[in-house]
Amino acid sequence: MKQGTIYGVGLGPGSQDLMSVRADRLIRGASHVAYFRKKGRTGHARSIVEGLLALDAIELPMEYPVTTEIPFNDPRYNELLAAFYARSVAQLTEIADAGRDVVVLCEGDPFFYGSFMHLYTRLQGRVPVSVVPGITGMSAAWTATGQPVTWGDDIMTVLMGTLPEAMLVEHIAGTDALVVMKIGRHLDKLRRALARAGREQDAWLIEYAAMPEERIRPFNEAVDSVPYFSILVIHGNGRRP
Amino acid sequence: MKQGTIYGVGLGPGSQDLMSVRADRLIRGASHVAYFRKKGRTGHARSIVEGLLALDAIELPMEYPVTTEIPFNDPRYNELLAAFYARSVAQLTEIADAGRDVVVLCEGDPFFYGSFMHLYTRLQGRVPVSVVPGITGMSAAWTATGQPVTWGDDIMTVLMGTLPEAMLVEHIAGTDALVVMKIGRHLDKLRRALARAGREQDAWLIEYAAMPEERIRPFNEAVDSVPYFSILVIHGNGRRP
Repeated sequence: MKQGTIYGVGLGPGSQDLMSVRADRLIRGASHVAYFRKKGRTGHARSIVEGLLALDAIELPMEYPVTTEIPFNDPRYNELLAAFYARSVAQLTEIADAGRDVVVLCEGDPFFYGSFMHLYTRLQGRVPVSVVPGITGMSAAWTATGQPVTWGDDIMTVLMGTLPEAMLVEHIAGTDALVVMKIGRHLDKLRRALARAGREQDAWLIEYAAMPEERIRPFNEAVDSVPYFSILVIHGNGRRP
Repeated sequence: MKQGTIYGVGLGPGSQDLMSVRADRLIRGASHVAYFRKKGRTGHARSIVEGLLALDAIELPMEYPVTTEIPFNDPRYNELLAAFYARSVAQLTEIADAGRDVVVLCEGDPFFYGSFMHLYTRLQGRVPVSVVPGITGMSAAWTATGQPVTWGDDIMTVLMGTLPEAMLVEHIAGTDALVVMKIGRHLDKLRRALARAGREQDAWLIEYAAMPEERIRPFNEAVDSVPYFSILVIHGNGRRP
């Protein structure tokens, strides 16, 4: 029997009509749809496709055994996640081996800081896998600011808020355009890093880009906490006629 | 009379089914469609939408008065382009003032090193403008390599081949994941910069990502020249369970 294909499908930033035509077709036509979620939640990826799935589509929620309850650097975190990915891969492979395709829903772009990558590297060589790129959350974020992010030969740097402060300072000071993701509990450190790099006045915070709750404000006004879907943007200012 | 809206619509990397559902709808329904092109050519943006436009759509090709014939740093280059953008903006504004919408076709993502930005900043405050983000060429490029580009807290840097060699070296050495665009006549300089940063073995060259001519090879094998649609990718290798 011919094996099915696992499709890692980028959903884009969260608005249904910002997914690609290819993603839209694959999702509407899918017999099996898998997605990550936190236990007890709908899951953001699943909520993006609400109303698009075929009525008889079989859903395969893959529930994280742990999200933020254990720190990254605890060995148990890696063990639990590795076992979880192995189980998920076994489940997907079983369906593909039975000749059926599976669409795996991926927020944003699958290969850009995505969770699907952990399945992808384990699926390679076992079953056919096809990845559909998507509009990144950062594209939606800078579009929401109403100002182009990079001009001419601007340098753009993408940083995670999880990095050490000194590294943030160095890279914030050394770039033209900047994107910072995974801000969450690193808000204060990020604020200090921006100030030390002399760029706290240039930074914008975009919450829920391309979603109904979208909100844009100067980063300085983000006083206490930011939601999970928050992206910091500094615009480049390069050569232009 | 109510003014029309100018839509800056991201087409994505070049495959028709990788444009967003929103872009697809706007383009199929457009009464006026504008796009940049080199004089005497079809234009890449226009060729991406071949077959999608309404039969009675009015096309507005905006032909560059100059592309690579005059160097960037020649003052005449800026003068010619500034006059060209002013004419294009006047044309678009006239249509919008007559109450009609115009869809401007933008390769990739409009606010990410896009040509539309030059119109956008001149249109702001004169007519309503709406920007639709798109899948970037770099997303298509790293997807084509079959390997995720960024993991965990990897740093990603985007550079233009037009930058001075010393600046390329510094930023190539200081990042995890790397994207370089605008390679063209800067191929030799870029090769030297990669070698000086000790990363020439890690680099991939993707030509025509997501287009029928797509080709992926180690950057080292790009001996003489590369086509306009070429992107260099170095994959990050960060934390993963």
